[in-house]
Amino acid sequence: MKLGSLKTIHADGELVVVSRDLSRVTTASDICPTFRQAIESWKEFSPRLQARADELEKGTAHYQAYDETKMMSALPRTWLFADGSSFIYHVKLVRQARKAPLPETLTTVPLMYQGECSRFLDPLENIPQRDFAFGTDFEGEVGVITDFVPMGTTPEDALKKIRLVVLINDVSLRGLIPEELAQGFGFFQSKPASSLSPLALTLDEFGTAWKNGRLHLPLEVKYNGNLFGNADAGAMHFHFGQLIAHASRTRDLAAGSLIGSGTVSNEDHSKGSSCLAEKRMIETIEQGSPKTPFMKEGDSIEITMKSEKGENLFGRIFQKVVKVP
Amino acid sequence: MKLGSLKTIHADGELVVVSRDLSRVTTASDICPTFRQAIESWKEFSPRLQARADELEKGTAHYQAYDETKMMSALPRTWLFADGSSFIYHVKLVRQARKAPLPETLTTVPLMYQGECSRFLDPLENIPQRDFAFGTDFEGEVGVITDFVPMGTTPEDALKKIRLVVLINDVSLRGLIPEELAQGFGFFQSKPASSLSPLALTLDEFGTAWKNGRLHLPLEVKYNGNLFGNADAGAMHFHFGQLIAHASRTRDLAAGSLIGSGTVSNEDHSKGSSCLAEKRMIETIEQGSPKTPFMKEGDSIEITMKSEKGENLFGRIFQKVVKVP
Repeated sequence: MKLGSLKTIHADGELVVVSRDLSRVTTASDICPTFRQAIESWKEFSPRLQARADELEKGTAHYQAYDETKMMSALPRTWLFADGSSFIYHVKLVRQARKAPLPETLTTVPLMYQGECSRFLDPLENIPQRDFAFGTDFEGEVGVITDFVPMGTTPEDALKKIRLVVLINDVSLRGLIPEELAQGFGFFQSKPASSLSPLALTLDEFGTAWKNGRLHLPLEVKYNGNLFGNADAGAMHFHFGQLIAHASRTRDLAAGSLIGSGTVSNEDHSKGSSCLAEKRMIETIEQGSPKTPFMKEGDSIEITMKSEKGENLFGRIFQKVVKVP
Repeated sequence: MKLGSLKTIHADGELVVVSRDLSRVTTASDICPTFRQAIESWKEFSPRLQARADELEKGTAHYQAYDETKMMSALPRTWLFADGSSFIYHVKLVRQARKAPLPETLTTVPLMYQGECSRFLDPLENIPQRDFAFGTDFEGEVGVITDFVPMGTTPEDALKKIRLVVLINDVSLRGLIPEELAQGFGFFQSKPASSLSPLALTLDEFGTAWKNGRLHLPLEVKYNGNLFGNADAGAMHFHFGQLIAHASRTRDLAAGSLIGSGTVSNEDHSKGSSCLAEKRMIETIEQGSPKTPFMKEGDSIEITMKSEKGENLFGRIFQKVVKVP
């Protein structure tokens, strides 16, 4: 099923179910008021939500036309956003760009930081930018929303805790990263509020494309209306079970935790990139210096994913960067 | 007033008001069900909570005896825990211990990382430890709970967003820090779940001890029943307004955000320390090597703070470390 959150006056929004073809939406707030509460009691609510989704597909549920402008990020806020960096080719390029050494544990221990999750921007909301010298960049990612994960869960068991999948635009401020990393405490200011896709999908929606803890479909990234990247999201070095196990090594993960894949990235340059930093690095390697600037006022980023049959799976993230005081 | 959360089956607990002398507790769930919801609509609820606290002091409110075993961390879970490191003497010692260079911006830009806040351990709850090779340590800190803070707030304006103060035991796994920092993404596994004091206090409870964005009182830390530290929590280099401004430079902070001071630390060694790492470093400097081991099975840590008149302000954090599978 496809779940989302309708904008209301409440920070958690209203839980809705959306039809597979993205044409119809029906409330599920009579089953459970919000997405966050649904994932917090998934075993209790998911069968009834599935029944509602089935009714919607059959046309027996009351529905309205799906309107993307009314949607919040599928899970509007949550307790943990642990963002991995599982596409090792991206790590290699970015470290090269920063002139930073590769971590010795590159292929054995996932990179992970804790990101902002107190309010994800709406999928169509402008990205507010105070200073364009901060070097605004997008990062197209896949993320999984977990059930409660006890401390010390194995990668194998962690796979069984994945409940839903979303797309993420992990906004990054490249200009702030070198100074923050030099301080030694990792990212903070350089990772402002991200956005999620309007729809979160259960694993059964992907058929065979969900395999070995990875979603084997291309992530379509359009920058200012032009195709920028179409890289295979299944090329993760660490699968989501390994990322979840890493996150839960020394802590329980709350139900509703979001685990990000890191910027989707393929070694095949013909697939394009899912962030500007990577494109800039490739330009540096191929042409001696970066040609593509970071985002400027009014630039737009669109992130979507199609099924093997060409259906839009998650709705779309479409955001412009705007200057704020 | 002094607010806290009673244990219930719900993750947010039940909002209660506690008397100034810590003898009586009265529910406030008829005003607002949970602490988290109260801080999210502080302007609406705080006058009524203050009235309830006044009734409790006068003896006109229905009350029960305060029982610390029934308390959760004052704010049992929240959306952001941004932990600073504002006691520069601690930073100097710890970096020396890690043989890491001091950041160039040590006195101008706060150090800050984002910590686990999906469930704070109860103030009397055991600290679960899977592997004592991780080097379990406590860190006694002061934290402030903010109202909504818009992106780009100045340090001066940020001071006006502070609503409540708590104590924090920021559990740290020292053995995991070097490897995590070498990876470049900062702390994650090395910062497991922390605990807060059972009581959160509004600023008017401190009289003149709250001054210039700092709480000028000693933090009492007892390790295995013995006084371990009594350092002045007012010796912060960056005040809380500066820490909040740092956190909100590129993001809005949700109402209920917790901003930590970092381990309380004074240059005067006679004041002791608020964490084992610091004591070990001082031993290394004075005796050539660390003598004090990290925490082992059954070790206990108690963190409290007294007013100038000697009253227990926040209740107590009292935790033992236990081995879990």
